[in-house]
Amino acid sequence: MQLGLGLIGSGFMGRTHAFAFNNVNRVFDLPVKVQPVMLADANETLAARAAGALGFGESTGDWRRLVTDPRVHIVSITAPNVLHKEMALAAIEAGKHVYCEKPLAPGASDAEEMTRAAEARGVVTAVGFNYLKNPMMRLAREIIDSGEIGEIRAFSAIHAEDYMMDSEAPWTWRLDPAGGGGALADLGSHLIAAARYLVGPVAEVCGEVATLVPTRPDAPGSARRVPVEVEDVGRAFLHFENGCNGVLEANWLAGGRKMRQDFEITGSKGSIAYCGERMNELELYVASGQSGRAGFRKILSGPANEPYGAFCVAPGHQLGFNDLKAIEARDLLRAIAGEETGHADFREGLAVQRTLEAIYRSAESRSWETVG
Amino acid sequence: MQLGLGLIGSGFMGRTHAFAFNNVNRVFDLPVKVQPVMLADANETLAARAAGALGFGESTGDWRRLVTDPRVHIVSITAPNVLHKEMALAAIEAGKHVYCEKPLAPGASDAEEMTRAAEARGVVTAVGFNYLKNPMMRLAREIIDSGEIGEIRAFSAIHAEDYMMDSEAPWTWRLDPAGGGGALADLGSHLIAAARYLVGPVAEVCGEVATLVPTRPDAPGSARRVPVEVEDVGRAFLHFENGCNGVLEANWLAGGRKMRQDFEITGSKGSIAYCGERMNELELYVASGQSGRAGFRKILSGPANEPYGAFCVAPGHQLGFNDLKAIEARDLLRAIAGEETGHADFREGLAVQRTLEAIYRSAESRSWETVG
Amino acid sequence: MQLGLGLIGSGFMGRTHAFAFNNVNRVFDLPVKVQPVMLADANETLAARAAGALGFGESTGDWRRLVTDPRVHIVSITAPNVLHKEMALAAIEAGKHVYCEKPLAPGASDAEEMTRAAEARGVVTAVGFNYLKNPMMRLAREIIDSGEIGEIRAFSAIHAEDYMMDSEAPWTWRLDPAGGGGALADLGSHLIAAARYLVGPVAEVCGEVATLVPTRPDAPGSARRVPVEVEDVGRAFLHFENGCNGVLEANWLAGGRKMRQDFEITGSKGSIAYCGERMNELELYVASGQSGRAGFRKILSGPANEPYGAFCVAPGHQLGFNDLKAIEARDLLRAIAGEETGHADFREGLAVQRTLEAIYRSAESRSWETVG
Amino acid sequence: MQLGLGLIGSGFMGRTHAFAFNNVNRVFDLPVKVQPVMLADANETLAARAAGALGFGESTGDWRRLVTDPRVHIVSITAPNVLHKEMALAAIEAGKHVYCEKPLAPGASDAEEMTRAAEARGVVTAVGFNYLKNPMMRLAREIIDSGEIGEIRAFSAIHAEDYMMDSEAPWTWRLDPAGGGGALADLGSHLIAAARYLVGPVAEVCGEVATLVPTRPDAPGSARRVPVEVEDVGRAFLHFENGCNGVLEANWLAGGRKMRQDFEITGSKGSIAYCGERMNELELYVASGQSGRAGFRKILSGPANEPYGAFCVAPGHQLGFNDLKAIEARDLLRAIAGEETGHADFREGLAVQRTLEAIYRSAESRSWETVG
Repeated sequence: MQLGLGLIGSGFMGRTHAFAFNNVNRVFDLPVKVQPVMLADANETLAARAAGALGFGESTGDWRRLVTDPRVHIVSITAPNVLHKEMALAAIEAGKHVYCEKPLAPGASDAEEMTRAAEARGVVTAVGFNYLKNPMMRLAREIIDSGEIGEIRAFSAIHAEDYMMDSEAPWTWRLDPAGGGGALADLGSHLIAAARYLVGPVAEVCGEVATLVPTRPDAPGSARRVPVEVEDVGRAFLHFENGCNGVLEANWLAGGRKMRQDFEITGSKGSIAYCGERMNELELYVASGQSGRAGFRKILSGPANEPYGAFCVAPGHQLGFNDLKAIEARDLLRAIAGEETGHADFREGLAVQRTLEAIYRSAESRSWETVG
Repeated sequence: MQLGLGLIGSGFMGRTHAFAFNNVNRVFDLPVKVQPVMLADANETLAARAAGALGFGESTGDWRRLVTDPRVHIVSITAPNVLHKEMALAAIEAGKHVYCEKPLAPGASDAEEMTRAAEARGVVTAVGFNYLKNPMMRLAREIIDSGEIGEIRAFSAIHAEDYMMDSEAPWTWRLDPAGGGGALADLGSHLIAAARYLVGPVAEVCGEVATLVPTRPDAPGSARRVPVEVEDVGRAFLHFENGCNGVLEANWLAGGRKMRQDFEITGSKGSIAYCGERMNELELYVASGQSGRAGFRKILSGPANEPYGAFCVAPGHQLGFNDLKAIEARDLLRAIAGEETGHADFREGLAVQRTLEAIYRSAESRSWETVG
Repeated sequence: MQLGLGLIGSGFMGRTHAFAFNNVNRVFDLPVKVQPVMLADANETLAARAAGALGFGESTGDWRRLVTDPRVHIVSITAPNVLHKEMALAAIEAGKHVYCEKPLAPGASDAEEMTRAAEARGVVTAVGFNYLKNPMMRLAREIIDSGEIGEIRAFSAIHAEDYMMDSEAPWTWRLDPAGGGGALADLGSHLIAAARYLVGPVAEVCGEVATLVPTRPDAPGSARRVPVEVEDVGRAFLHFENGCNGVLEANWLAGGRKMRQDFEITGSKGSIAYCGERMNELELYVASGQSGRAGFRKILSGPANEPYGAFCVAPGHQLGFNDLKAIEARDLLRAIAGEETGHADFREGLAVQRTLEAIYRSAESRSWETVG
Repeated sequence: MQLGLGLIGSGFMGRTHAFAFNNVNRVFDLPVKVQPVMLADANETLAARAAGALGFGESTGDWRRLVTDPRVHIVSITAPNVLHKEMALAAIEAGKHVYCEKPLAPGASDAEEMTRAAEARGVVTAVGFNYLKNPMMRLAREIIDSGEIGEIRAFSAIHAEDYMMDSEAPWTWRLDPAGGGGALADLGSHLIAAARYLVGPVAEVCGEVATLVPTRPDAPGSARRVPVEVEDVGRAFLHFENGCNGVLEANWLAGGRKMRQDFEITGSKGSIAYCGERMNELELYVASGQSGRAGFRKILSGPANEPYGAFCVAPGHQLGFNDLKAIEARDLLRAIAGEETGHADFREGLAVQRTLEAIYRSAESRSWETVG
């Protein structure tokens, strides 16, 4: 089966989608083959330039043309969050499969509308929680599922970067409250997805948010400052449905941290620890009776950790961020081919959104809130 | 000035106090010299054996005899938490200086009574927040005070160990609710002390606690199980008086963690990160314009980090846990000699206790609580 | 300029070449565009299967057909070392540009013949010292060239993996002495390339080799064992032409090591340290007067470290091994377009080979040997 | 048994000896009790000041008086290397037990004379290879002896510090060629001791040395420079008697390294790795069939690693450098009490010296040399 790809957006995420689809059929043997067809961006000029660079034959400044083009079967949405809903609904209506960046939509009700529309139309969807695609994340899940570390007791996670650290860093669409939030929406949504993937659904939360840089220049180098209305740091206590408890923190002011997506999972028989800046490693502790020999084991990603081997036969040689997107694209294509993949679709994106929304509600009410 | 030491307790902490005072006048040049005089323990036999091993000429099964002995000028209290208050009050009444392990007392009102008594009687006090004595902690404080990492924005900390991980680990005095709490009291109190030392007083908190091992054998190997009434895991969001915010977690079920007292401090110009299992290192990030050269700097403890040099002239050769207690003893002796040390005295112990108590109140009320 | 690619071999390295050329024109904006044309392997069946998977329209069991096909302009050689020379000479004779895996040839005289042939014919060549393409390696070179760590004094390196650790691991072509050597040829050649790239040419060496697993099964699961004639571990002291000295070790029995390509460079004002299993990090120490603040800085790869940004705009998100091959392919294409790239061509491969050969001579003579 | 201690020298090592003996009878329950009696230093003033600080009742500027004093039973020698022999011989002649810092003497013939004298006189001796006393080192030995990592194949070690990095660092007694050597004698001797302790005796060596800072100020701040006659960097290949091979490097110019005493041991079934700047950790890899779970285990020092528990009952709380000296003192006292300790005595110091001397001979002859 040969399918055409339409890509909306050519920024950070747009490029990674293009790279992912460019590789997915080389690295993996899949029943679905993808061809880049059209790229849409904010205007014709931008779109044309990006299309040339990224291997798309056509370009457009009008994303609506892309989503309705009959040669396009899969629509990748990498535009600002605030546009996700409108684009996705249009693509779904046109019967396209949709691969949308996270967070799915500014609010859970939007995400729900998108999810219902996709399910009603019968198209396949995916949300870009790319870090779940890391073979080390899959290994963590396998370890948990197998009972190797016993019953899960606690989950602790942080996603810290520093791209907004500088008070003079100007306003961007990430700061638009219409986009649904700040650091929690941008970084914390990855932690919620990881928490759900590894531990399970969250039943109730207690959250707090803080805006520590209250104003920013309205444009690069501008002397005019605008207020910041979204959080720089957000945190939540989590009570999972299965009785496990946890905590997460999202922080985009964390000087020196570039991809500190770290978590630790405490089980009754052992623990797992992961550091996002060393994404090819997973640390595993399993309690044993061996006196003076216990300790965290540093597992290096390798062919034994599926699907590392599709990229490289030699362990320890390391995958990169773009490889994760190729794995994400693989799961979408497999799902389109009718396989059971368990990948993060719109329904999963909705569940993340509901959890996120409960955290914001809790930060407002200053008390625990049930996840809707 | 030559002073006599009376030590109550000879367990983990009792031994470290003995080691500390045995070294303090060798390592440091101090105006006060200490001689071990008497050791008290739960009974005469235990006390006699410990006194011999630890270099105390006399021993007793009756701690009251120790605190009133005229040759004893400093009383070290390392008995279970539930006994701290009675012992300290008796020692204070007898006009002794008191060095008490943390937490100071089961509750803040107890701690307050102890503090007032000590201040009224004019004796010098100290609480065993030993980790504050690490030269790397002092360096962190210096870095913050100097403004090197700008204004402090956020504080995130965890103290995780695994000594209660095994569900079959039997009941101990640490699980006695009369002692004031569980993991938060035992481990979290160190984090509160560190938060106060590095960032400042905490104004309000939002906490939660969880008991994940609900029952334990009532004695080693016993088939009879008793309920656990204190928390295995506790967490709190912190709002500091200076506007900074933070989070802490205490967990004594954390498989594989032995002394994971980690914290990260986010400032407007940089960050500090510390890992307790590598107590001779501090990581410092300072934002700079040097393209492609930025990163966390791993500082190895050395003579430039006071008072490392008193122990060893060669950097990187590492101090150990017992050395921290010797530094703590030094500060007590300096304070007795009338120097300004800024060390953690009973009033500081009380402030920690009040913060801890607010966290417990918050966990109960499921809402934010003001620190009393 | 549009050029056709012919790939010989589809094993570990064959696949990475295919991936590299599949990405190079997406990730980079280059004057030369590459199209996969033909893939050759040991027989028609293998070749056909690999061609389909890797996107080559044609396949052949006869590599001579590939190197003479007029639609092929670039020949990638990833066959066993023992075949490199014959293939490369044929491709050069046919006027093709050649991208050959390392080591270039079993012996330096072979490598010299290849180099002379390529230079005489005026084709562009490249040797697969892929790790040199890591932005962190380039950063190391920049730091050295800029004088940031002063005059270089010493170089110490190891490349350790464990793929031959198991005494029951069967004989492979890597053990064929006709291929030119063992661990030194396979892994050590990367270290020599790095030493030359970072420090400069090596004037004389003192080496030693050891075969620690003397026999191996002649095939997987076979009971028949054959002697091993190449080294499992090899080492050399290095005297560089510029007066710097160093040491290297290659070890393919190193249990638990998967890609331990580590080096440390000591300069008069600082140091650089690198660990191959964490290829997105470089540690930099620069001596400074700042008391109690000195330490190695851990630099995380990012857009400031060219050409990381072509893959990903976010620092710390990490490149993978395959990305290095894409950078290597970029440099080849740029050189074909007439740009000055300084990349490792056959002449560089020859210099590495001569150094390697001097080490083997030294191990034999048990004395120092001049690099020819 | 109560014995008197005489300490010669009160610099870096002198202080650590004083600390060690001050603690040894508190931390350990030993048949021999030690009392500090007399301290000798270069002159009366220095000696008096140090004696007061370190708890010695008497002091002298004449070490000969100390070694013959009848109240002194154990003589600790921490004076410059060039004086070790004369002092040790005098102490031995007076029937004292001798605890001498490494290297034992400038040359192997000196060390041999000292060893023979001690053995003839029947006194107990010890050499200060303190790092062997680390519980993690003992664990490494246990792992090797138990066969957990199979047959030992290779040993690779480095001891790098940076105390001589600065070209303006003035001449010290460490640079006196009469002391027997440079970085190899000072740092490399620790590696030889470790190699012998963990792997076994060395049969032949191939060495090289380099003096990279050719002149230094003759005194702090002086404009007059004197030539440096000992090596800044030294290296050796090692062939052990048991067939294992290895390499070591000593470097005192290694910017940023303070106590980088790292080694890795490759066995047929696993590996051990150790980093001296993290002396409370040992990394252990044991090959196993568990797919996707293998990796180096980071063992944190704890009570299961004897004699950690004598210092601290809680694992992961860390020992420091001075604690190692206390363990060394313990072994000396046990040996005096007639116990079999296997500790490093003069005969062991002699074996190290012979290995060291062979390396220097080899560096001179530029060929392999047999260890005498």
